[in-house]
Amino acid sequence: MNLDNIRIVLVETTHPGNIGGAARAMKNMGLLNLFLVNPKSHPDPKSTWRAASANDVLERAKVVDSLEDAVADCHFVVGTSARQRRIPWPSVDARGCALEISRLTENERVAILFGREDRGLTNEQLVLCNLHLQIPTSDDYSSLNVAMAVQIICYDLLIQSKYSGEFEHIESNWDSPFSTNEDMQRFYLHLEETLTEIGFLEPTAPRQLMPRLKRLFNRVRLDEMELNILRGILSESQKLARKNR
Amino acid sequence: MNLDNIRIVLVETTHPGNIGGAARAMKNMGLLNLFLVNPKSHPDPKSTWRAASANDVLERAKVVDSLEDAVADCHFVVGTSARQRRIPWPSVDARGCALEISRLTENERVAILFGREDRGLTNEQLVLCNLHLQIPTSDDYSSLNVAMAVQIICYDLLIQSKYSGEFEHIESNWDSPFSTNEDMQRFYLHLEETLTEIGFLEPTAPRQLMPRLKRLFNRVRLDEMELNILRGILSESQKLARKNR
Repeated sequence: MNLDNIRIVLVETTHPGNIGGAARAMKNMGLLNLFLVNPKSHPDPKSTWRAASANDVLERAKVVDSLEDAVADCHFVVGTSARQRRIPWPSVDARGCALEISRLTENERVAILFGREDRGLTNEQLVLCNLHLQIPTSDDYSSLNVAMAVQIICYDLLIQSKYSGEFEHIESNWDSPFSTNEDMQRFYLHLEETLTEIGFLEPTAPRQLMPRLKRLFNRVRLDEMELNILRGILSESQKLARKNR
Repeated sequence: MNLDNIRIVLVETTHPGNIGGAARAMKNMGLLNLFLVNPKSHPDPKSTWRAASANDVLERAKVVDSLEDAVADCHFVVGTSARQRRIPWPSVDARGCALEISRLTENERVAILFGREDRGLTNEQLVLCNLHLQIPTSDDYSSLNVAMAVQIICYDLLIQSKYSGEFEHIESNWDSPFSTNEDMQRFYLHLEETLTEIGFLEPTAPRQLMPRLKRLFNRVRLDEMELNILRGILSESQKLARKNR
């Protein structure tokens, strides 16, 4: 586990105190990379106060306009989610997530996303993710404060990094680098365009087609060569569709 | 593990926000018994605000004058501590503590103590304890916010009570059965046929195309609905290719 390759992304956080609390929680557990997507107030004295000796984490936090910018160069994106969505997504608990991403962080960048206090991540934001993470809670009160959620997840990451025996994984010694999130988003645009042109996707009645295909390909983590093959197939199909018009 | 037999004891807490944060952290994890030893300000609007929907925990919190009163009827007392004391004490980490006390809570009352924000529990207070608990942290910044410490410990207690070490698997509660090997072999024939018809696969020079695509789809484990979507796309492309001949 290389904690330097993990970034915590807070999306549209409303209360600056939570940003400071999250920064402290991160530094306590050895994580230093914080991204803020459209924070309501930053910098803010309340967040500075809550950060205590983690002010360096706040100061070097990157503020960006869109979630896509925050994860563009990441190879694996995890979204925290309090509830099951309409389409089930591969999901783990906090401990399972730490186990799952520990091997990835050796060479690749991993982002963990936290949504807005009052509603969490939206369905559109969750579709960007390779994996969903649910923190186990009491059934009576499952809504965690966002800084607390950051604390628990960073804690499990630290524990995993400190104490776990290493194990070899299926994807060690892969023959091609894995795709970034940005590459995947371009592929999805190409896929959607092609399915429309060949008449398989009806834009006025898209049903759950694209979310299901995204879930499929996010689950597999395409390498660059596989991505090229799939895009080659799409281009060939487009050519046929255009000749037919 | 019987979480009802565990009480959280906050000793001389200075900031009411931390009391509220601790109450919420407790309720999120299914713990409801809070004791406050000489809190600086209680009740307080700041703690009410931070408690959110855990106000019932705050309202039924017992306020006492001395730590001795807070633990008098307990059978086992755990003290949280950031550092090793002069006299080594039996000590565990948060996870070890959850394991250690899980069997006690069936019939006995257990208290977990958290000291004042600026100095933690004093040596005199720690001597009251059966066990000391240290939360693992980064060496660079080991001082946790007290509500965060409560959150981590309650989290490990919940995990211990819910799963006793087990964690949920990524693919539990999937919405469609996974495909059989037989279905997959049929899909691969369909895929190969289609790629040939649209001119992407040259049968006399197939290179590593099919093995790479098989590795991709075997890695993902397609469910039946996904398989149907992919075969639908293949059929549509075949139609186009045949029209074009």
